[in-house]
Amino acid sequence: MTNGEYTLPDVVALLVESGEHGPASHRYMVDAPMPSVETLSEIVEDLRSVLFPGYHGPSKITPETMPYYIGSTLDRLTRKLSDQINRGYCFVCESTDTDRCHNCEERAKCIAKKFITKLPMIRQYLLGDVEAAYDGDPAAKTHGETVFCYPSIRALTNHRIAHELYLLGVDIIPRIIGEMAHSDTGIDIHPGATIGKNFFIDHGTGTVVGETTIIGDNVRIYQGVTLGAKSFPKGDDERLIKGLPRHPIVEDDVTIYSGATILGRVTIGKKAVIGGNVWITRDVPAGAQIVQSRAMQQSFENGGGI
Amino acid sequence: MTNGEYTLPDVVALLVESGEHGPASHRYMVDAPMPSVETLSEIVEDLRSVLFPGYHGPSKITPETMPYYIGSTLDRLTRKLSDQINRGYCFVCESTDTDRCHNCEERAKCIAKKFITKLPMIRQYLLGDVEAAYDGDPAAKTHGETVFCYPSIRALTNHRIAHELYLLGVDIIPRIIGEMAHSDTGIDIHPGATIGKNFFIDHGTGTVVGETTIIGDNVRIYQGVTLGAKSFPKGDDERLIKGLPRHPIVEDDVTIYSGATILGRVTIGKKAVIGGNVWITRDVPAGAQIVQSRAMQQSFENGGGI
Amino acid sequence: MTNGEYTLPDVVALLVESGEHGPASHRYMVDAPMPSVETLSEIVEDLRSVLFPGYHGPSKITPETMPYYIGSTLDRLTRKLSDQINRGYCFVCESTDTDRCHNCEERAKCIAKKFITKLPMIRQYLLGDVEAAYDGDPAAKTHGETVFCYPSIRALTNHRIAHELYLLGVDIIPRIIGEMAHSDTGIDIHPGATIGKNFFIDHGTGTVVGETTIIGDNVRIYQGVTLGAKSFPKGDDERLIKGLPRHPIVEDDVTIYSGATILGRVTIGKKAVIGGNVWITRDVPAGAQIVQSRAMQQSFENGGGI
Amino acid sequence: MTNGEYTLPDVVALLVESGEHGPASHRYMVDAPMPSVETLSEIVEDLRSVLFPGYHGPSKITPETMPYYIGSTLDRLTRKLSDQINRGYCFVCESTDTDRCHNCEERAKCIAKKFITKLPMIRQYLLGDVEAAYDGDPAAKTHGETVFCYPSIRALTNHRIAHELYLLGVDIIPRIIGEMAHSDTGIDIHPGATIGKNFFIDHGTGTVVGETTIIGDNVRIYQGVTLGAKSFPKGDDERLIKGLPRHPIVEDDVTIYSGATILGRVTIGKKAVIGGNVWITRDVPAGAQIVQSRAMQQSFENGGGI
Amino acid sequence: MTNGEYTLPDVVALLVESGEHGPASHRYMVDAPMPSVETLSEIVEDLRSVLFPGYHGPSKITPETMPYYIGSTLDRLTRKLSDQINRGYCFVCESTDTDRCHNCEERAKCIAKKFITKLPMIRQYLLGDVEAAYDGDPAAKTHGETVFCYPSIRALTNHRIAHELYLLGVDIIPRIIGEMAHSDTGIDIHPGATIGKNFFIDHGTGTVVGETTIIGDNVRIYQGVTLGAKSFPKGDDERLIKGLPRHPIVEDDVTIYSGATILGRVTIGKKAVIGGNVWITRDVPAGAQIVQSRAMQQSFENGGGI
Amino acid sequence: MTNGEYTLPDVVALLVESGEHGPASHRYMVDAPMPSVETLSEIVEDLRSVLFPGYHGPSKITPETMPYYIGSTLDRLTRKLSDQINRGYCFVCESTDTDRCHNCEERAKCIAKKFITKLPMIRQYLLGDVEAAYDGDPAAKTHGETVFCYPSIRALTNHRIAHELYLLGVDIIPRIIGEMAHSDTGIDIHPGATIGKNFFIDHGTGTVVGETTIIGDNVRIYQGVTLGAKSFPKGDDERLIKGLPRHPIVEDDVTIYSGATILGRVTIGKKAVIGGNVWITRDVPAGAQIVQSRAMQQSFENGGGI
Repeated sequence: MTNGEYTLPDVVALLVESGEHGPASHRYMVDAPMPSVETLSEIVEDLRSVLFPGYHGPSKITPETMPYYIGSTLDRLTRKLSDQINRGYCFVCESTDTDRCHNCEERAKCIAKKFITKLPMIRQYLLGDVEAAYDGDPAAKTHGETVFCYPSIRALTNHRIAHELYLLGVDIIPRIIGEMAHSDTGIDIHPGATIGKNFFIDHGTGTVVGETTIIGDNVRIYQGVTLGAKSFPKGDDERLIKGLPRHPIVEDDVTIYSGATILGRVTIGKKAVIGGNVWITRDVPAGAQIVQSRAMQQSFENGGGI
Repeated sequence: MTNGEYTLPDVVALLVESGEHGPASHRYMVDAPMPSVETLSEIVEDLRSVLFPGYHGPSKITPETMPYYIGSTLDRLTRKLSDQINRGYCFVCESTDTDRCHNCEERAKCIAKKFITKLPMIRQYLLGDVEAAYDGDPAAKTHGETVFCYPSIRALTNHRIAHELYLLGVDIIPRIIGEMAHSDTGIDIHPGATIGKNFFIDHGTGTVVGETTIIGDNVRIYQGVTLGAKSFPKGDDERLIKGLPRHPIVEDDVTIYSGATILGRVTIGKKAVIGGNVWITRDVPAGAQIVQSRAMQQSFENGGGI
Repeated sequence: MTNGEYTLPDVVALLVESGEHGPASHRYMVDAPMPSVETLSEIVEDLRSVLFPGYHGPSKITPETMPYYIGSTLDRLTRKLSDQINRGYCFVCESTDTDRCHNCEERAKCIAKKFITKLPMIRQYLLGDVEAAYDGDPAAKTHGETVFCYPSIRALTNHRIAHELYLLGVDIIPRIIGEMAHSDTGIDIHPGATIGKNFFIDHGTGTVVGETTIIGDNVRIYQGVTLGAKSFPKGDDERLIKGLPRHPIVEDDVTIYSGATILGRVTIGKKAVIGGNVWITRDVPAGAQIVQSRAMQQSFENGGGI
Repeated sequence: MTNGEYTLPDVVALLVESGEHGPASHRYMVDAPMPSVETLSEIVEDLRSVLFPGYHGPSKITPETMPYYIGSTLDRLTRKLSDQINRGYCFVCESTDTDRCHNCEERAKCIAKKFITKLPMIRQYLLGDVEAAYDGDPAAKTHGETVFCYPSIRALTNHRIAHELYLLGVDIIPRIIGEMAHSDTGIDIHPGATIGKNFFIDHGTGTVVGETTIIGDNVRIYQGVTLGAKSFPKGDDERLIKGLPRHPIVEDDVTIYSGATILGRVTIGKKAVIGGNVWITRDVPAGAQIVQSRAMQQSFENGGGI
Repeated sequence: MTNGEYTLPDVVALLVESGEHGPASHRYMVDAPMPSVETLSEIVEDLRSVLFPGYHGPSKITPETMPYYIGSTLDRLTRKLSDQINRGYCFVCESTDTDRCHNCEERAKCIAKKFITKLPMIRQYLLGDVEAAYDGDPAAKTHGETVFCYPSIRALTNHRIAHELYLLGVDIIPRIIGEMAHSDTGIDIHPGATIGKNFFIDHGTGTVVGETTIIGDNVRIYQGVTLGAKSFPKGDDERLIKGLPRHPIVEDDVTIYSGATILGRVTIGKKAVIGGNVWITRDVPAGAQIVQSRAMQQSFENGGGI
Repeated sequence: MTNGEYTLPDVVALLVESGEHGPASHRYMVDAPMPSVETLSEIVEDLRSVLFPGYHGPSKITPETMPYYIGSTLDRLTRKLSDQINRGYCFVCESTDTDRCHNCEERAKCIAKKFITKLPMIRQYLLGDVEAAYDGDPAAKTHGETVFCYPSIRALTNHRIAHELYLLGVDIIPRIIGEMAHSDTGIDIHPGATIGKNFFIDHGTGTVVGETTIIGDNVRIYQGVTLGAKSFPKGDDERLIKGLPRHPIVEDDVTIYSGATILGRVTIGKKAVIGGNVWITRDVPAGAQIVQSRAMQQSFENGGGI
């Protein structure tokens, strides 16, 4: 085993040895199944077909048949969701007392049912977002186009679902639902973020909205906008303190252009307009219009940087 | 039903009620099937196999067998495309006169055939794009590598297909094809954008090219570049006026570095070089070299922002 | 055939004609199969299940059964990988001497086995990256969450695999593995980049790390950061000189905020902090803190640009 | 092309030439799609989930949710079935008058809806068949076992569906549904056969029930039983006369053991018992018990045959 | 609702009403999932790959890697099998006391593990069956051919698996595994049947072996052979008495030719030969050779039958 | 390990030990892949689409596009078939001299091409079989119905393909293709059987045609007919002598009814008619009509058997 010339059994042994402890190996609740990205993806697609019937799911739907489709879809997805919520509890559980498992299962069923009752409200928010997309983009020819293929609507559907699950105390699952939208659209919204009515993210790739962000009504942002954290206070144990408010508050009617970076618990006041590519770490007053310092014309080879 | 404790039939009823009107529910032409993202994806993969035989589709192809593969693939995809084009018409149709449906079907067949005759031209453009990628990226070892795995070629193949369909008056389908590339590559080019020869987008994530953008020959841009709109004039009905020229004109031989934001109907003159992260809302003369104002060295905690 | 009114045989003939030469058609080693993105994707998923048992692959794994799973997975993927490496050789091969093919096959088998012996080391690096993600993000509730759904870990797993294959002289395959992560996460790391311990990319969409980049230990970067090349020297043949060092060196303990663009073979010194959206093309000294010039408050309609 | 040494183009030409006429090539209604075995299979599975809810389709169904599942399934399958019925019409259509196609489409929709109204009756018959299977097989532990895995119930479900479609004048589709069961179970019942209540086919492989067979109530037959035709009168054109009654009539309460062959328009009278392996081409009176002539014990090498 | 002109809601209501009681609807343990034919099929394929490594499952297996493949496959299938066994218990359970469910789960795990310990014995039997197939069929060119594609080996693999599960008291699952083979091969062996060493069924379509059949060593039977029951005694409740010995005993070294029907608890003595198409309902002494009565040559139109 | 209480490692060890030798484990040519049933199934479906264009494969085919479809399908399937033929050689190869492998690969390519040149002839035979099915079955409404869903045509398509491969000396593959049809249709024809023009097997389940059978023109047989072997001479090594003529010769214009068993190298003379369920082991003269001895009417409980 000198010279890095391991045999297969050697490599297996090395990997098993180092895999038996530490974060490389998942060993929380013995035998608890992991959340399934595939099933969560089916659940979200089922929810899309309930929230936007005709656009997603079966396309030929009439007032007569709509209850059948919505009813059967809700029943099916509630069971699946309940199972995934329970897996989420297991994912973060460090107990080895299997008697408690039954409680988690029951709690998961209960949460899944509560979540279903939020759907009419979620639909209302999403209708506002569709309106905002149509009103905010001259390239949108119909409302239907925004429902069917705008990344903004796709990401916000995932977010508004994930956010309700987050508020209901579901572990890990909301984050996975958020990351699905992130992978599909490049829009990364943490499920903890609070977002008001009629929100629109145009194009969206690279936009980041952090966990404790609060966004008001009628806000429009563009691709590459960061609403992030700046500093990360550590506790006495030299570990980050988790859960502190650390992301911006964006008030009603604000517009933020592409590539702007806004960090920290700062407030962007009502109706402010933030130009592209600026770096902001302080409050911006209501109505302010902020743009980058004028760029310089110069020889490119020698230019830029400090 | 107080206390938010709906039963399943209650939630179904609420969702059906609010889903029967408004943009949540697709109810244009009764029974018209929606465009299928899955089928469009097959069509685009078939087109890739025709445009770059051997790279995509069956890998073992010879001069003797190439006509069989190209012929059968074109025939198959023309039928599929014709059906999708027709679904696109239905998607935006508000008529309930089903007698007109036959016309749309015939029109879709005709358009699909016209599109096929554009393929030799599309191939010529894409060969120029391949050359530009190979010439423009020192990391590209062979032309084949750019064909097989560069996001730029993937996104431009989708775009040049979508653009021809856009010019032929196809509804919604071009946009879906553009969004497929957007999701895969992070490159968001509106099908309406006019793009010249030998175009190269390096890396590409977060790059946005708006609907009325006009790009000349031999242009090279990087990831995170926005060629967008700045203002959105509204008509007398307080709705956005759709279709106005509102995106930049980028002349021949221009280079734009990563993260630059260029907004509005401005012209970036021939051979200009735009540095990264700048914000431009005015014309840039030919040959100009523009970079961001020099960054400041300072205490980070107190720095940045207004 | 006047008036652009080709028939199907005409279009086929035109496409065959132009496809028989030039980079549109893959014609290196006759009959050599192309690398398969689908198989490479299976290989990478198999590697994830070996590197993070329990998180990926079968979820119910015990110390008793772990060797069986790791051993059978390694055996299966080694065979698949060996075949793909050989296809990579064929992809760039211009020889028509089929006698040499057997040598490439043998070489591929040998490389695949060598690669497998690197896995314990790759695992060590990834454990450091997991620790860095958990320590660097206040939103991370558990280590497991970062393993299971952080884009940073997904992209770095692909990168550390691809980088070892790159060092072993494998053609094209490492690049494809890198592009898979790019498409999934928006993080574009060239397999040639050298990355130290405990690396963390938060959010990550739009981040680019170029081929000759060198990154030290404990570095943290954010979404939209570019570590790129600025100029591209051409050789006497007017073609780019490939392979020159042309990307930044980032020393230990550096932090780079979102949207920063750093171009060329510059050095960002130890413990430096680079603020968001800056454009840097010169060295930054150790410990420096760089932020964008203060943005201007002004009338938005007239503001910004040169 | 001497010596049977065709090239690929030669073989293609030969096959095209002979394929352009005669029954090798399907050329009825231009462009009419063929019935889809895959879709018909989905339709039949959907019907199983409606006829035996809980056994087939989603397993967790309650009185509250049953209407949602049955309603949405019926709506979905009616649309699919209507399309397949129309394809069946096209399959046998020799007209080239495409104006008539719309009529066929409408007729197919109408027939599909009529078929749906037969489902409660079909369910009643199948419940009788389940009872007969449970009562007739000592190996059946529960009714559920016969529903879930008895070939008899599977084949009779297909048959009772196919028979109603046959009575409604649907072309080819009933036959395909019958052949699906034939392939799965080895039980070959022509959709034209009339079958009474409480029918049971034990084991069933090789059992054949011809088009004009009439079977009464409470009949039990075994594997390898043939209820077939003996002679085939030809018309003046030297072609078989199609559609004549030519298969047996089996009256109530008859039992037929394995391998019996009964040919022609003979009547097997009420309560008759037919032993295995007999060959019957004449009427059998009510209550008769028929067995094969006693077998001979003899030297095997010299035995048997004429 | 006169005239059989139901609307969709009418049909739904009728089906729900009649589906809420009786055997049409599965309503045993609330919420217990049904056995999954798909998963059982995976389990059986996994078992084939363990019993015949190299033929089924991964083809490239070496003495070094065999333990990894067998170990991981056994672990995976044990978990799946345990779940299916539990579903089998639920399938026949009429209790509504969910506290007992945990017991069934534990019992299922225990049974699945016991079953695994039977595999070496099952392998020994199957090796004998392979030898018998090779020795008994002049068309068999190699042993491998019989392993890879003989219906006899496929059906006996399923049977010997199902029989062990039957002996372990597993409900319904053995029957489903038997019916899978029946559907694939036309060979219908009840899991209860006891079969000795070196058994061979040539061709096999239509062969039936009943629940209480006992077959000795070195027996060879052909297609269409029935080893069935003749009479079905009923109990005082007018229901069949289930479980009585009612099928033949076939002693060592017997051969039974195609289409023979042997019914009832009769004994076919050692080394007897039964010719094709005979009907036997009495004991056959050891060494006897039985053939059908000599067929008659006569005018076909008038011939046969009683 | 007493008491049958093995642990997982024990069972693995036992299975590995007994699996390392004997026919349980496939260990011919090291690393040679097994024939793939899945790929062979694709090949046969491709052949169906070439032999019956419009019925199988893409349904919308015109004289203009037919060459493209047939050409590309033939090219694709020739490559796949060549690979499977080579795997067939490996399956029966006991050599460890890998230098010979290249020869087998070349031979396989050559055979695959020769096979392709047989397709026009195979098509001719199949057209005769279609005609025979239409002429022979009063239930056949159109020729198309027999092409699309008759088991006879499905089984004969597989057989005529398999038979040509058998004549070309291909190992194991023809048998697998025959068994595919056997599993689908219950018709078991050995690839070695020689079958004349216009052959029709009605229903077909349980019909067996042995390896050395010779069937003339215009023969019609029914389900459950056996054309088998009776005795199996053994050589000096006590092993069966393989390859001897041992199955019937059936001359032109013969009809054999269901369930007849004809064993040994006997001749059924021209125009003979064999009734159902008879057992024949001697020659039958031309024109003879053979039926079973008259069955007896008697008390069922006491009847039948010897």
